[in-house]
Amino acid sequence: MTSTPFLSLPTDHAGTALDGRPVVPSRGRLRPLGLAEVSITDGFWADLQGLNASSLIEHCETWIERTGWAANFDAAVEGRLPKDRRGREFSDSEIYKLLEAMSWEVGRTGDAALDGRLRALAARVARAQEPDGYVSTMFGRPGQGPRYSDLQWGHELYCFGHLIQAGVARARTVGEDELVQVARRAADHVCETFGPDGLQGVCGHPEIEVALVELSRVTGEARYLDQARLFVERRGHGVLGDIEFGAQYYQDDQPVRETTVLTGHAVRALYLAAGATDLAVEDEDADLLAAVALQTTATLARRTYLTGGMGAHHEGESFGQDYELPPDRAYSETCAGIASVMLNHRLLLATGEPVHADAVERTLYNVLATSVAEDGHGFYYTNTLHQRSPGVEPDKHQPAARAASSLRAPWFAVSCCPSNVTRTIASLGAYLATADDGGVQLHQYAGSTIRTGLADGRAVGLEVRTRYPAEGHVLVTVVEGPAEPWSLSLRVPAWAEGATLTDVEGTRFVEPGYVTVTRSFSVGETVELDLPVRARWTTADPRVDAVRGQVAVERGPVVMCLESTDLGVDVEGVQVRTDQPPVEVDGQVQVPVTTLELGTTAWPYGVGARAVEGRTDRGLVPLVPYHRWANRGPSTMRVWMPIAD
Amino acid sequence: MTSTPFLSLPTDHAGTALDGRPVVPSRGRLRPLGLAEVSITDGFWADLQGLNASSLIEHCETWIERTGWAANFDAAVEGRLPKDRRGREFSDSEIYKLLEAMSWEVGRTGDAALDGRLRALAARVARAQEPDGYVSTMFGRPGQGPRYSDLQWGHELYCFGHLIQAGVARARTVGEDELVQVARRAADHVCETFGPDGLQGVCGHPEIEVALVELSRVTGEARYLDQARLFVERRGHGVLGDIEFGAQYYQDDQPVRETTVLTGHAVRALYLAAGATDLAVEDEDADLLAAVALQTTATLARRTYLTGGMGAHHEGESFGQDYELPPDRAYSETCAGIASVMLNHRLLLATGEPVHADAVERTLYNVLATSVAEDGHGFYYTNTLHQRSPGVEPDKHQPAARAASSLRAPWFAVSCCPSNVTRTIASLGAYLATADDGGVQLHQYAGSTIRTGLADGRAVGLEVRTRYPAEGHVLVTVVEGPAEPWSLSLRVPAWAEGATLTDVEGTRFVEPGYVTVTRSFSVGETVELDLPVRARWTTADPRVDAVRGQVAVERGPVVMCLESTDLGVDVEGVQVRTDQPPVEVDGQVQVPVTTLELGTTAWPYGVGARAVEGRTDRGLVPLVPYHRWANRGPSTMRVWMPIAD
Repeated sequence: MTSTPFLSLPTDHAGTALDGRPVVPSRGRLRPLGLAEVSITDGFWADLQGLNASSLIEHCETWIERTGWAANFDAAVEGRLPKDRRGREFSDSEIYKLLEAMSWEVGRTGDAALDGRLRALAARVARAQEPDGYVSTMFGRPGQGPRYSDLQWGHELYCFGHLIQAGVARARTVGEDELVQVARRAADHVCETFGPDGLQGVCGHPEIEVALVELSRVTGEARYLDQARLFVERRGHGVLGDIEFGAQYYQDDQPVRETTVLTGHAVRALYLAAGATDLAVEDEDADLLAAVALQTTATLARRTYLTGGMGAHHEGESFGQDYELPPDRAYSETCAGIASVMLNHRLLLATGEPVHADAVERTLYNVLATSVAEDGHGFYYTNTLHQRSPGVEPDKHQPAARAASSLRAPWFAVSCCPSNVTRTIASLGAYLATADDGGVQLHQYAGSTIRTGLADGRAVGLEVRTRYPAEGHVLVTVVEGPAEPWSLSLRVPAWAEGATLTDVEGTRFVEPGYVTVTRSFSVGETVELDLPVRARWTTADPRVDAVRGQVAVERGPVVMCLESTDLGVDVEGVQVRTDQPPVEVDGQVQVPVTTLELGTTAWPYGVGARAVEGRTDRGLVPLVPYHRWANRGPSTMRVWMPIAD
Repeated sequence: MTSTPFLSLPTDHAGTALDGRPVVPSRGRLRPLGLAEVSITDGFWADLQGLNASSLIEHCETWIERTGWAANFDAAVEGRLPKDRRGREFSDSEIYKLLEAMSWEVGRTGDAALDGRLRALAARVARAQEPDGYVSTMFGRPGQGPRYSDLQWGHELYCFGHLIQAGVARARTVGEDELVQVARRAADHVCETFGPDGLQGVCGHPEIEVALVELSRVTGEARYLDQARLFVERRGHGVLGDIEFGAQYYQDDQPVRETTVLTGHAVRALYLAAGATDLAVEDEDADLLAAVALQTTATLARRTYLTGGMGAHHEGESFGQDYELPPDRAYSETCAGIASVMLNHRLLLATGEPVHADAVERTLYNVLATSVAEDGHGFYYTNTLHQRSPGVEPDKHQPAARAASSLRAPWFAVSCCPSNVTRTIASLGAYLATADDGGVQLHQYAGSTIRTGLADGRAVGLEVRTRYPAEGHVLVTVVEGPAEPWSLSLRVPAWAEGATLTDVEGTRFVEPGYVTVTRSFSVGETVELDLPVRARWTTADPRVDAVRGQVAVERGPVVMCLESTDLGVDVEGVQVRTDQPPVEVDGQVQVPVTTLELGTTAWPYGVGARAVEGRTDRGLVPLVPYHRWANRGPSTMRVWMPIAD
């Protein structure tokens, strides 16, 4: 696919650019490019977008009907609630996230059939909206809790946040329509209810903040930004009251601007930080921006898995303490990965710091891509780095528990991840490139076409050809550009020691960060980046106790893993020899493996711990990309492998 | 204290021996000795019993009043429920466990003042009991859920189980009184309600099973045993329905006799296994006994911390998978330790296998003893093996969260552990020794006097003098005994390689397990056991990934730990050199420590993971017994220490 349907779309009647950008800060270091300017044409991400188009979105449409969660809106209209309600208190949000995914997808592809389904689904939501803008299938009717009677756990504002994000996506792709109107009415209701003179509450689950700022950006209405500011500033003062997890669970223990590292429920913390970033940018609030940047870099430095995954505790789906990152109990919720991409993308736009683009890349390849089954009909909710037991195949027809098996499940009782995945995949193009006054920056590498304008309106067109991450060669061709000098910047990932850049001036080594070529490019001129993607051993900071004496393999941005499927036996007793680099044979990564034969002992410590009864040299054993694991049936798996003693 | 008040107590009117035995199986390999036969006179456990007498029991009495949990019974009588109810759904059980503790303590010491307080507290419960025997402050009134409307979470039968155990303790110490009558009426009610023709349910939290079997043993009434059998056999067939944790959480996923290793919520699993053991013994059900023994030995071999602690997941307070034993996320609930002692004591009586006495010892020294603050006013709910952050001092006047600080808290919102600790400490004497047809077996070593009879009625008296576990010398003197030969057996713990036994025949090496001396002992004759308690390095099975490359120190049965209090800095960057054994200087264990100076890095993996900026040789640093940690203020702590690279 090489079509870029966005380029032919007009601005809407209000003059809003229909440029398909999920995040449009009014200022900042870098200007984002949207789906109208960037089209992923082939390779890894194009394949995933193809899977989204051919399977994942429809899969979610099927399951919101099968579970009755979409029908809750019909039941609301027909007066059958709460009797006929299905799903958890936040199930409305799955319909909204799916509407957002469909909006980006319609914008990206112009798929008329999908557009029709989107309109039909949005109409069911619209019919359930009350005259004052409130819409919820969970609260407010006889037999239900009153509106906002359970801000701790009720998720009403969280649901509105996702509804508004869906409206924003629609506004930025086809312009004003029924979904946009529903979202605006909901936002107006929120502002009226929770404004300076209204309820002095916040939602137990942040999300409304990021949505309101973006709606303010779309509409130009300051009231939405003002309301987002109220929510961000109210939080952290015990306004929600205590719960058994502690107020830290929902980030109500300390104000966001006083927080130095992310804590509590990972998705909540990350959504809040993303909203606070948006707010800081619009308010030119340097202190708030610095606080969020500090939290984020501290979290990357001390509370993030090798995969980019966040959340070390199953209990409370929360961040652990610094360096507490057990592979076998990694929660690493798919939604937390998506939230981290949202946050780091915003910080990249605000600061231009490459650490945030590095985090986006790592998380996309190793959390987002991991969460999706190759067949397009399964998802991970949690993303463990060490599977000790293969478990059983999930039921294809029933929602699954969150971490019951080594296999991806079609749906979950708490099913936040699938629709979140689809909206992210549909809008992936927005993460590839940015522009600033002087040029264009490439952050993520995929076969793509980029057509944008510099700040002064000069048009720039680029074609990127690459088989990245399978290969490290990235060929950028200037297909359109002004005669005057401008700058093309390319990100060199932090792991890419020894990368080289080749242009008309020859080949040279480039350091991690951004390498910038400034010149008067002629049409057809190329810049080539060569990233050393060959497989490498990776060790961890000694403070990460849980992987002491173990090693992982990374290949480019892709984390590898050892699966029992390839080893032939369980991965429990495996050891790898690290005296030479991992081997690559025909594109397959292999490592030298010994397996211990481990007997049963009455007590696993001390004198009685001598369980090793023998060793078997397994020769070179293939690894697979972590994002591909468990696509061949139940297995055991390790990202971190003990080093041979 | 050398008094043995039990010896002067009569049997009650029904002929029940007032021998102070918590567990009295009608058959089995070993006959338990009760508090009437064993008195702990000095040393480690005598000190803890002294703390229980002087502080812990009164502390719990204070807190059940401060929290209003005891007053719930008064409110029930006065018709003020549910309005005035305080505490969680299981708070009644704290009053019952405390009544059990007071019962054992009155039996042990004859403390008349305590007996008066016990009677007064029991009377408040008695007044709240309904005519049909039902008693609960949580269910059954207008505004409350109906009786047994929430078997999954309501804990009604769990509470009855603790009430019945309190009654059993009272029956076995002073005989029939009001508390015993209340317990019997409750048990009768349970049998009538849940019998063969009654409700076909079980309680979400096992406990009633073990209580009913013991009440059957006390009273001789088969109906209680029959009811316990119904509960054990009903369970495991999905009778409770599914929950988000899965039916495994409350052991309703598979029948206990088909279970091969303990799973789910640790306390529930262990209480159920203890009850199933009792049932198997009474029913002479060899299959059931074998199943529980297999579960237990498998759990000891693969799912138990070095401390004896059980439960590797905070989420669901549950067992992890095999060898999934993270020190920093050890849940190791105090109640699970107590439940493990209950289970292993029962299996020891049934099978005579030393692995169970080893487990009791390890768990008493390293979980039970750890849970109690030296000042007698604090408890651990969870028992981590690695404290990463010192946290803040718990509020002395408010119930704490379960794992909020490195310090013991005075009470908890869910406060199952304190009263459970007091009942266990008061009845510790029951775990020291047993008898069988041919002699007496010593399982735990403490300064103590033992006066019992062999099966044929021949009296045996022993005095045990030892400073164990501080020192390894155990001197057993026969102070009374028949002229004919009989057998004295002494347990040699599994870790005690190189132990020696000295008697009139000289000194010889003895193997772990039981060493038995059979002879015609003369009065005053001694048998001496020397256990090599000197500090030793302990490593773990390579399958325990979380402590790979790390080592612990044990000294006799006592697990040691390194505290920041002794190191002077945080334990995060510590490494120990293991080329020579730990040093002992004036009874203090010391190990050679290096600390790494660890800088901040942007990313903790790969090339960027080179965080080590320097090393400091700290020389020999003292360790403290794990059960003593955090008695000197907030600290960080490690049981498992990285081995120097």
